Amino acid sequence: MMSEFELIRQYFTGRQPPQAHIPLGIGDDCALMSMRSGQQLAVSTDMLVEGRHFFAGTDPAMLGHKALAVNLSDLAAMGAVPRAFTLALALPAVEETWLSEFSKGMFALAQLHQCQLIGGDTTKGPLTISITVLGEISPETALRRDAAQLGDDVWVSGQLGEARLALAGRLKQHVLSAEAQHAADVRLHLPVPRVALGLALRGIARAAIDVSDGLVGDIGHILQRSGLGATLWCDCLPLGPMLALQNRAMQRDYSLCGGDDYELCFSAPRTQRAQVLAAAQGVFTPVTRIGYLEAEPGLRIRDASDKLLSLQLTSFDHFTS
Amino acid sequence: MMSEFELIRQYFTGRQPPQAHIPLGIGDDCALMSMRSGQQLAVSTDMLVEGRHFFAGTDPAMLGHKALAVNLSDLAAMGAVPRAFTLALALPAVEETWLSEFSKGMFALAQLHQCQLIGGDTTKGPLTISITVLGEISPETALRRDAAQLGDDVWVSGQLGEARLALAGRLKQHVLSAEAQHAADVRLHLPVPRVALGLALRGIARAAIDVSDGLVGDIGHILQRSGLGATLWCDCLPLGPMLALQNRAMQRDYSLCGGDDYELCFSAPRTQRAQVLAAAQGVFTPVTRIGYLEAEPGLRIRDASDKLLSLQLTSFDHFTS
Repeated sequence: MMSEFELIRQYFTGRQPPQAHIPLGIGDDCALMSMRSGQQLAVSTDMLVEGRHFFAGTDPAMLGHKALAVNLSDLAAMGAVPRAFTLALALPAVEETWLSEFSKGMFALAQLHQCQLIGGDTTKGPLTISITVLGEISPETALRRDAAQLGDDVWVSGQLGEARLALAGRLKQHVLSAEAQHAADVRLHLPVPRVALGLALRGIARAAIDVSDGLVGDIGHILQRSGLGATLWCDCLPLGPMLALQNRAMQRDYSLCGGDDYELCFSAPRTQRAQVLAAAQGVFTPVTRIGYLEAEPGLRIRDASDKLLSLQLTSFDHFTS
Repeated sequence: MMSEFELIRQYFTGRQPPQAHIPLGIGDDCALMSMRSGQQLAVSTDMLVEGRHFFAGTDPAMLGHKALAVNLSDLAAMGAVPRAFTLALALPAVEETWLSEFSKGMFALAQLHQCQLIGGDTTKGPLTISITVLGEISPETALRRDAAQLGDDVWVSGQLGEARLALAGRLKQHVLSAEAQHAADVRLHLPVPRVALGLALRGIARAAIDVSDGLVGDIGHILQRSGLGATLWCDCLPLGPMLALQNRAMQRDYSLCGGDDYELCFSAPRTQRAQVLAAAQGVFTPVTRIGYLEAEPGLRIRDASDKLLSLQLTSFDHFTS
């Protein structure tokens, strides 16, 4: 059997070209990274557990992609430039095919963002993936959750609810055709971190968050940290193509409360509408204006005829769900 | 039942005074950390899995200490100043007592080193703890594994083998009195990261590593990266007090190959002996000269009468052990 050290060497080192800002990568007690003057470090950590964040038997290449993508999504939501990441991986056993595919999926995304794997840990245990991502940020343009202001528009990138639909199909909560399941699965397994959009919105948007636990819960964090409330138009929410084929109740439920979207929800001054659209267009990412911030605390959902809806909404919780 | 967000808030936020170098801590998509000009970031990640790195039922306060300590030990082995860390925690269930004790143990050590918890993730899953630690380092004095030079002395801090003895007692590989088990357990559960020593050795020592998988295996990394060999005097190795009461064979085995010591093994020029001793004394940490580096590759172990020993030595491997 391959030893731990050989395993790490073979699949996780030498896969990326050296970069000048990483004077020392994998293979010492610590990695060393240099920072550009005046920049701050942006740090985020996520942990994915088999059976909770992904199904047992999930395609390892997709899993490698997703594990890094959800972390890059956090950098995107701050407007930070990805620089490096560490990987802590617990595996029940050493399977070469699995490792090869997992690392392929992870490094393909890492290369796209020139984000260097600089360290980590591999151990035996129930399949668990923890990634810490490191980025650089100009503090004055950070898209902080507490930076929203009264009267800001609320925007969201891409489309919502498709990953939740895929999950519903897989959990037999809903019957999907094989084609629809496959199409929706792409959004569940291969989320696109909106890094370029986050960077393009610096100096234009104010507050941002990535939609990982559901729009309602996540925008709630902006509202709470900024001391504001909001109105959203639920029938304006951009829907994934398979969700767009479902009934209205499901569309509202999954777009408002479905998790795993990894879109950016952000606030921007009303005076910046043209700039928001131009910035989004410049990085080929659709954005939709979905509401506005107001002084009254809490979140109000209105339908297409501006009628206030009374919805029982809860965000995703890893311990109670 | 307490929600994930409430849980995080209650036990992992507001426990440490704010620090100027952390303009944004827990509660946004990313934390932000500022770096001093000319300094590089030192990064290390470890993952601890129940049943593999620690026994089920381990005292949570000790576990909180150890999970952070093993990461601080990596910073120590580079000569880096601890600045911040992230925590990813998978828990089978929310137990308030456990969380309270775990966070107490972790924050007590974090405070000692002014190392700020700046982010993380909590999820349901088999008990798994992954910490990423961030430090600052002057690149010119980093204690890199590849920096050892021919003729350097080899030193080790503190005492070796005591944690391995505790493990032997717990695994019934060896009969220990309750008193001896208890005394040895302290070294297994509450390792002291040699942060102050690592900092004191900057500009004096050349290469360093922390002894986590056993002295022989770990010094092997320095030898390999520096392209050198070494001779060690096995009967000169500093032994933990309970190990010092055991037979010679066990002393050699556990001090050479026992894991979980978290002492620093480092190389320094022969001309720096007085400086090494003074630096160690200045931070109240005993150090022992245990051998020297030579051109011939490989590791040679000699006894007190300078006789070359033939030992079957292997380092700890999480997948094959």
